[in-house]
Parts: sequence; C-alpha cells; structure tokens
Amino acid sequence: MPSFDFREKDPFSPIVYSYPGTTLLHQERTPYQEIAVLQHPHFGKMMALDGVIQLTERDEFFYHEMLVHPALHVHPSPRQVLIIGGGDGGTLREVLKHPEVQAVTLVEIDGGVIEVSKRFFPGLSQGFADPRVKVLLDDGAKVVRDPPVRYDVAIVDSTDPVGAAEVLFSAEFYGAVADALTPQGILVTQSESLLFHLSFVAEVQRRLKHHFPIADCYTQPLATYAGNWWTFSIASKTHSPRRPVRAQKVPTRYYSSAVHRKAFLPRSIYRRMVAGKLDW
Amino acid sequence: MPSFDFREKDPFSPIVYSYPGTTLLHQERTPYQEIAVLQHPHFGKMMALDGVIQLTERDEFFYHEMLVHPALHVHPSPRQVLIIGGGDGGTLREVLKHPEVQAVTLVEIDGGVIEVSKRFFPGLSQGFADPRVKVLLDDGAKVVRDPPVRYDVAIVDSTDPVGAAEVLFSAEFYGAVADALTPQGILVTQSESLLFHLSFVAEVQRRLKHHFPIADCYTQPLATYAGNWWTFSIASKTHSPRRPVRAQKVPTRYYSSAVHRKAFLPRSIYRRMVAGKLDW
Repeated sequence: MPSFDFREKDPFSPIVYSYPGTTLLHQERTPYQEIAVLQHPHFGKMMALDGVIQLTERDEFFYHEMLVHPALHVHPSPRQVLIIGGGDGGTLREVLKHPEVQAVTLVEIDGGVIEVSKRFFPGLSQGFADPRVKVLLDDGAKVVRDPPVRYDVAIVDSTDPVGAAEVLFSAEFYGAVADALTPQGILVTQSESLLFHLSFVAEVQRRLKHHFPIADCYTQPLATYAGNWWTFSIASKTHSPRRPVRAQKVPTRYYSSAVHRKAFLPRSIYRRMVAGKLDW
Repeated sequence: MPSFDFREKDPFSPIVYSYPGTTLLHQERTPYQEIAVLQHPHFGKMMALDGVIQLTERDEFFYHEMLVHPALHVHPSPRQVLIIGGGDGGTLREVLKHPEVQAVTLVEIDGGVIEVSKRFFPGLSQGFADPRVKVLLDDGAKVVRDPPVRYDVAIVDSTDPVGAAEVLFSAEFYGAVADALTPQGILVTQSESLLFHLSFVAEVQRRLKHHFPIADCYTQPLATYAGNWWTFSIASKTHSPRRPVRAQKVPTRYYSSAVHRKAFLPRSIYRRMVAGKLDW
C-alpha cells in the first residue's frame, strides 16, 4: 500500500501535525462526518474524523483512562453511567473495568464510528459486547433532556466543539445533564487544549459553575491532540473532584491516585484561568 | 514578505510540526548550525536551529521558568550559577531574577546564537548586560572539567542530544559536573520528551544516579517541542528536588511552589520508567 504524509486538517490549531509514512486502511463518509482509518509506523492504527486524529492505538490509553477514572474514583458508588459520544469504545472499556457499574448507556450520534471501531479497533470496542451496555444512536443533548433513568456519572467524549458536538459544550446542555444526574452525580467532559483554546476552557468552567456546586479542571499531555496540554472539565454535586474516595482496584496503564491528584491545575492557576487572567 | 509553511526537520519525532503563515526574518550558517529567525501569527518570533524550533516568544516562559526555578528554589543559597548552552538568554533571564545569585557563567559554544538573540529577542537576551554575567564561548563539557570556581547550581540548556550537544548527556559529563559543584550542588538539564524519547529519559536518570545521591524527573507540556510532554532531569547532592526550601519571591508567569510540587512524576511512574518498565 502506498504511504503518504497524513496532514491533519484542524482549523483551531496554529501548528499543523503531519504523520509521515501513513497508509490508508479505510475511508467512508457517513451522514455526519468522514471517517478514516490510518496505519502509522509509530502510532499504529489511528482514527480520524473529518481529517482530525481522534485516537491512536499507541497513546489512546492516556486519554481514555484520564477521561474516565478520576470521575469514577470520586463517586462513592457509580452504578448508572452515561457516555455521550465515544463511539470508538475506549471510554466504555475503561468504565466497564469498574465492578460497581451496573449499567452503561452510550449515546453516539454516528453509528458509523461504532462499526468502524468494531472492525478495526478490537482493543477499544470490546465493551460493546458487555451485557451491561445499551447503545443509543441518537443526539446526546436530546437524550439528557428526557433521560430514562438518573445517572451517577455522565461522561462526554466528544469531538471538537464544532458541528454536531458544539451543543455538548453549551450551558443549556450542562443544565440538562445536572438534572439527569443523581444527587451525588458527576459530569466530566474533554474540554480542549489549555494552550491553544484557553479562553474556551475557561468558558466551559464558567458554564459548569452555573449548574453545579463544584467545577474543576485537570489536564494530561497528549501528543496527538493539537495543543497537547489537554484539559478535562469535571463538575460535581457533592464530592470534591480532587480527592479519590475509593481505592484504585481497576487495572490501568497510567492512571493512579497519585496521577489523579497531580493532574488538577494548581488552584491559583485555576482561579486566574476562570477569571480570564491567564496571559498565555 | 512572503509567508510559507515552516515544516520542522526533527529526525526524532514521529509527528512533523508545521507552522503555516511563517515569514523568514533572518537566516545564517555558523560553524555549528543554521540559525533561522521566523515570525509566526500565533507564536510571534521563533528561533530555529538546524530546522528545529528552539523557542517562540509566546511560549518560551514555560520552558525557561521550569528549567530554572525548581533548582533555584531547592538550593538554600544559590550564589554561583553555571549555564551550559542557553545562548538565547532566556535561562539567564530567569536565573538573574534571584537576588541570591552573585555570579553566572554562561558557556555557549555558538556565539552566533547570542548575537541573533540580542538582535531579535530583546525580551530574552536582556540579561547579557547584567554585571553578574560572564560569557564563555566554549564547549561546556570542557569548561566543567577545569572549572574556575565551584558552582551551586549547574543548568544545561541544550539542543537535542545530537552533534555538539550529545556530550552534554553523557555519564562522563555528569561526573564532571558533580565534581564542579559545591557540596549542596544541584544539576538540572532539559531531557527530551517523556512520550517520544522515553528510553532516553530513563537513561539520563540512570547516568545521573551514578554521580549524584539523588536524581529525579519533572515535566511540563510544551506545544512547540516534539513529543510535548517535556522532561527536566534534576540531580542533587543534598537536597530533595521535590521540595522548595525557599519561599518564592521572584516574579513568574507560570512557576509557583504548587507547580513545582505537581510537576514531578508520581513515584511509581518514576520507578517504572528508570527500571525500563513503562510500556509507552
């Protein structure tokens, strides 16, 4: 197969990332986006949506572990979990590691992503076969307005905040999620780069604070997302997100209680960010 | 001036970084390397050596503050400071913020870098005018074998470990630095990416442990260095690098005691890395 220089198409990044030596394994256009499956000598298989890398086999564990395990270790008893987006299954895989979890609803707008992941990324999509899992091919923003049950933890594993994903970062959506959560409920969402999208990260925090008593932000460096210093925004009705309340029993490659505590922004930086006073 | 897509030439990165909209302000070949000064709409002025970005006006403070201030806050009385490399002056600027510092020797092999910085990067090179500063245009590895004084802190601000900089990561060099330091002496060096150069980072730690009672590693995400999750390796004769012993009085844009403490790798990750057991 001919290899080429896969050049990312990310309108929000001042740096363009290219992956030399890439081969194209699969490409399709769904009603929502263009899905590409690529093979790269360093990163292994990669999935791109509309020309932007969403995950690579090599480093996806950093993102998926850090999206899931802080929230699930902060909730004392996460039984009902909602995942919005995450059609590749990586987030689902991490959630299902927790034996406390009794049921997971995964709401993905594009069934094509799930099918592509089942075919090309078995290491991520294995969780779809778990009997605890229910998949809804629907708009997550619609589902949270009329939820079939109340959730203990809601996880938003979305693409960048454009197109179908934009609504998943709106204040209205966060309010609906708050209503769909139990009294100890926790919401966590990926929220872009602390370097390249700083004012957006701050705005997400302010929107969360409208609907939750506690909002906070932690980070993880990710080489394959533009801006790299990736943020996760977490909002909570009762429990402090900075302190795991359950001992870690799930197997991970990276996440640990120490990683959890260190990942949160120092409070002075956090305060300056939310106040719009970080001059980066 | 015509703008172009500046594509980095980094042989050690599986991702190629491009900077669209760049203009070339200056270019020269010295006996050691090709220096380019570039202008970019997001990052401002940037300096590239042999086609690899070394600093940008926009984000250099993360790197320079994190290279300098942990070591200088761990030493109780940093009076004599040695900088190897760092011809742009950014590291020097941060060192000179500490009133305890009485003398700084900066050893730069390529005087061309200093001249270019004085001309194009006044925000970095201001420290060269400080009377506490002595510049040696020489090979840092040679200078530490026969040091004119003993240093409290030695800072290695080098390019990637190839060519002239390779020796600055050798066990022999670290031994010579240890001998050139006072009994409470501290060495800190940039040590590449925790993601893209993991086995190299581990090797640097093992080499430091041969010559110092304490070696440790902290990190900072940097968008303009390939691999992004950047490491700094610190070695100490007496003091624990994880704990600042002096209150912060110097003005910074990012560094703080909280940043200092959070930046160190969790101990379990550190141990697995040094043992070659991280499977990233």
